[in-house]
Amino acid sequence: MSSLDKYEKIVRLAKRVGIFWPSYEIYGGVSGFLDFGPIGSQLKRKIENRWREFFVKRFGLLEIDTPVASIGKVFEASGHLEHFTDKMASCERCGRKWRADHVAAEQTGECVDELGLAELEEFIRRRDVRCPECGGELGQLGLFNLMFETKIGPYAERRDFFRPETAQAMFTNFRRLYELARKKLPFGAAQIGRCLRNEISPRQGPIRLREFTIMEFEFFLDPEELSCPYLPEVEDDTLPLLPAAEKSKGRHEVIDVSVREALDKGYIMTEWQGFFMGISKRFVEGLGIPVEKQRFDEKMPWERAHYAAQTYDHEVWCERWGWIEMAGISYRTDYDLKHHMEVSGTDLRVTKGNRRFIPHVVEPSYGADRLLYAALEYAYTERDGRIILKLPREIAPVQVAVFPLVAKDGLPEKAIEVYEMLRDEGFDAYCDESGSIGKRYARADEIGVPIAITVDYQTLADDSVTLRDRDSWKQVRNKIPALPAVLRDFFAGKVNFDSLG
Amino acid sequence: MSSLDKYEKIVRLAKRVGIFWPSYEIYGGVSGFLDFGPIGSQLKRKIENRWREFFVKRFGLLEIDTPVASIGKVFEASGHLEHFTDKMASCERCGRKWRADHVAAEQTGECVDELGLAELEEFIRRRDVRCPECGGELGQLGLFNLMFETKIGPYAERRDFFRPETAQAMFTNFRRLYELARKKLPFGAAQIGRCLRNEISPRQGPIRLREFTIMEFEFFLDPEELSCPYLPEVEDDTLPLLPAAEKSKGRHEVIDVSVREALDKGYIMTEWQGFFMGISKRFVEGLGIPVEKQRFDEKMPWERAHYAAQTYDHEVWCERWGWIEMAGISYRTDYDLKHHMEVSGTDLRVTKGNRRFIPHVVEPSYGADRLLYAALEYAYTERDGRIILKLPREIAPVQVAVFPLVAKDGLPEKAIEVYEMLRDEGFDAYCDESGSIGKRYARADEIGVPIAITVDYQTLADDSVTLRDRDSWKQVRNKIPALPAVLRDFFAGKVNFDSLG
Repeated sequence: MSSLDKYEKIVRLAKRVGIFWPSYEIYGGVSGFLDFGPIGSQLKRKIENRWREFFVKRFGLLEIDTPVASIGKVFEASGHLEHFTDKMASCERCGRKWRADHVAAEQTGECVDELGLAELEEFIRRRDVRCPECGGELGQLGLFNLMFETKIGPYAERRDFFRPETAQAMFTNFRRLYELARKKLPFGAAQIGRCLRNEISPRQGPIRLREFTIMEFEFFLDPEELSCPYLPEVEDDTLPLLPAAEKSKGRHEVIDVSVREALDKGYIMTEWQGFFMGISKRFVEGLGIPVEKQRFDEKMPWERAHYAAQTYDHEVWCERWGWIEMAGISYRTDYDLKHHMEVSGTDLRVTKGNRRFIPHVVEPSYGADRLLYAALEYAYTERDGRIILKLPREIAPVQVAVFPLVAKDGLPEKAIEVYEMLRDEGFDAYCDESGSIGKRYARADEIGVPIAITVDYQTLADDSVTLRDRDSWKQVRNKIPALPAVLRDFFAGKVNFDSLG
Repeated sequence: MSSLDKYEKIVRLAKRVGIFWPSYEIYGGVSGFLDFGPIGSQLKRKIENRWREFFVKRFGLLEIDTPVASIGKVFEASGHLEHFTDKMASCERCGRKWRADHVAAEQTGECVDELGLAELEEFIRRRDVRCPECGGELGQLGLFNLMFETKIGPYAERRDFFRPETAQAMFTNFRRLYELARKKLPFGAAQIGRCLRNEISPRQGPIRLREFTIMEFEFFLDPEELSCPYLPEVEDDTLPLLPAAEKSKGRHEVIDVSVREALDKGYIMTEWQGFFMGISKRFVEGLGIPVEKQRFDEKMPWERAHYAAQTYDHEVWCERWGWIEMAGISYRTDYDLKHHMEVSGTDLRVTKGNRRFIPHVVEPSYGADRLLYAALEYAYTERDGRIILKLPREIAPVQVAVFPLVAKDGLPEKAIEVYEMLRDEGFDAYCDESGSIGKRYARADEIGVPIAITVDYQTLADDSVTLRDRDSWKQVRNKIPALPAVLRDFFAGKVNFDSLG
């Protein structure tokens, strides 16, 4: 297995144990879609819940849940209909369509991010960039809008879209949300949900999906009171930064600065962004991704989305692809609310004393699927030729496996009893009696089960079981009735494995 | 408020406290879409988790999570492209389009379900059924496919769809799932996810949505071993049935029969269907919907989906609309796997001894949004002119509210401490100090918070707080450190309110 890279190894494991696999396999598939299996869907849910704990619960965010299908007007007003495009090139010979900037960069090794449509076309002509599939010439470039289009209802003239981000629902619902927040700023609104982007030719597995889950929140602020009272909590934390100001001076190395310094030096525009970047680093670290494999890369003006005054991509190092964006922390200013106010005619301003103004917005936005992949990459470990998925216990898809030592003498029945007790106490558990105990441990390690419990002959005598640690393979014994309490403390991170005995 | 019907009352409450409201309000909206607010999205999640406990965890179902966007081939093979249609009539005068059978039934009071396209057109002509909006004549009828259409990727010739049910992913993934089930029948695969149906002119709020959440599972069976070992658990439970065989004899009253009798009399085709119908009744009852407001209505041959050999709709009585389908329990036979096998060329048969066969499927499928609405309808209560949402504690969106008696003398700080402790122990809680204590109780009652905790002057002396019951308004006192354990037992349904003191 050692000749494969980590991505390849994870993809193999993922298919075999039911984490994820390409969608629509029996029909030859189509790139950009993944199916999550029993382990993967559970892992994704755990990551979502962890995010809820870190952000929604901690900051009292108003979490909403809105449709994927959207009337066209929303994305006309938001600017997505005009701006949410990629440059597309078609092969003159085979007809295949490509993302022009990606193909040009791949074949020349040069950065073409700054080039406009005509410039890129000229570049492709001049450098003889060709169709990656058949080598044919690439024809005229065009802009391709990344939103999936559809029609709501039976009317042919409609033009509606599937959302490429969940954010717009927080803007169009601003009045309702502001009422629910009892008309006080700052407050935040959050959403975890499916989004769709019709990528031209995605080729990076779980990293570039056409359908994916975004976890994001919009934090609404009074533009005259941008200070963050929680800042002291993270102000001394180090942020590995790539500020645009430094990059434009030709400095492309990460600078390690504290959140406070980054604000003082003007690298980060508002305290709330700085604060959330500090929290973001902790959140990602909590998924098992070391801090030295994280960085914050500020987007250059031509790389930023149309709505952002500043965006730091929170990136994680992935073996195959290098630095990959896991989240974007953007300062959206009043861009979105202003445009929806203009187009809808609804007043989205708030009143405070004598002032009437449109709130500003700071937005941290996370890709759940990418975080899931990155968590797998850092959890993936081999030991004695076996795979162990060392996922942090807080996001382990299955928490406890219960095994009878042998499949006879009443041990299976006892094991089922223990399993059902744990399940009813709210643990994610399973019971497995097939194969040798070693094989069952190995299967549990592969899907990252932190604790394996074995029911043996001694259990029948004194109601005690063995608990085995996934990471150290150490074992301790404890009584069955004690399990719920000690395991609850263990999974809440209050005690370590050694305290379970 | 008493002149409003319950639906109207719930809609008002839902908007005011953040349960749900129509999507895209600032753009004039479009029917068939709902936004769930903070309370509604939490309630929906709780219902989904309850369903997971009842079905996924209990029966070890393989829960997957797959895309909403689908390649066209899948729904060509499944028969949806051909059969998933409604009869549509257009107004000759105003151009509006209508669901022809609904309009015809509304205006004549007659049942037109059995009529084919030509017959319905003739009926509309003869009975002079008109446009409900402008009174214009209705033109020629046509079939309208209910799937939202789109194109995956930049190719104009593609014809792809958004899924109208999650089921197909369980069929197209059958081989992978069967491997994960270690090649043993029976086993089930489940999915909770968004689905879309492009209804022609939906007019029933949360009951007929164009985008909604389905919770369903496909239970794969050996057609020669259709018996259910768990049957004894529910065989004596009463099912309020409307069997098709009785209806076709003109008997339209519910018959109360036990699950066992229903099977013996041939009303229900397989034991697994009967078993899941028994469990279904308990599940729906657990959402606070009394058994006498539930019934199982067998669909007549012309009402059934194209894939079903038998379907019982699990219905709940709603004040405004009468009996409404919350779930369908269908016997899909080998219909889906057979079609996917034919169209994809992938062998979806299993081997058992000398036999090689396509498994049969029993499918319970639930509408999460409708269940949410029905749960609200049965929870909605008025007392002394106030609203109390008596949701079962297992699905209450917020479990605990914490109040300082007054907003001074250190009580707010103590209340926040209690709230944060409960939040960190995993409870869904909030802290509220604004307004009189009576107002705060009232606000908590309206969103169905089962337990309100008040921090008062005695708290500062002896660390005790008051716990108040939403339903009886009774109060008990207990010490703060005792709260996590007693509340955990309370929300697990192990003890009643009186034991909390």
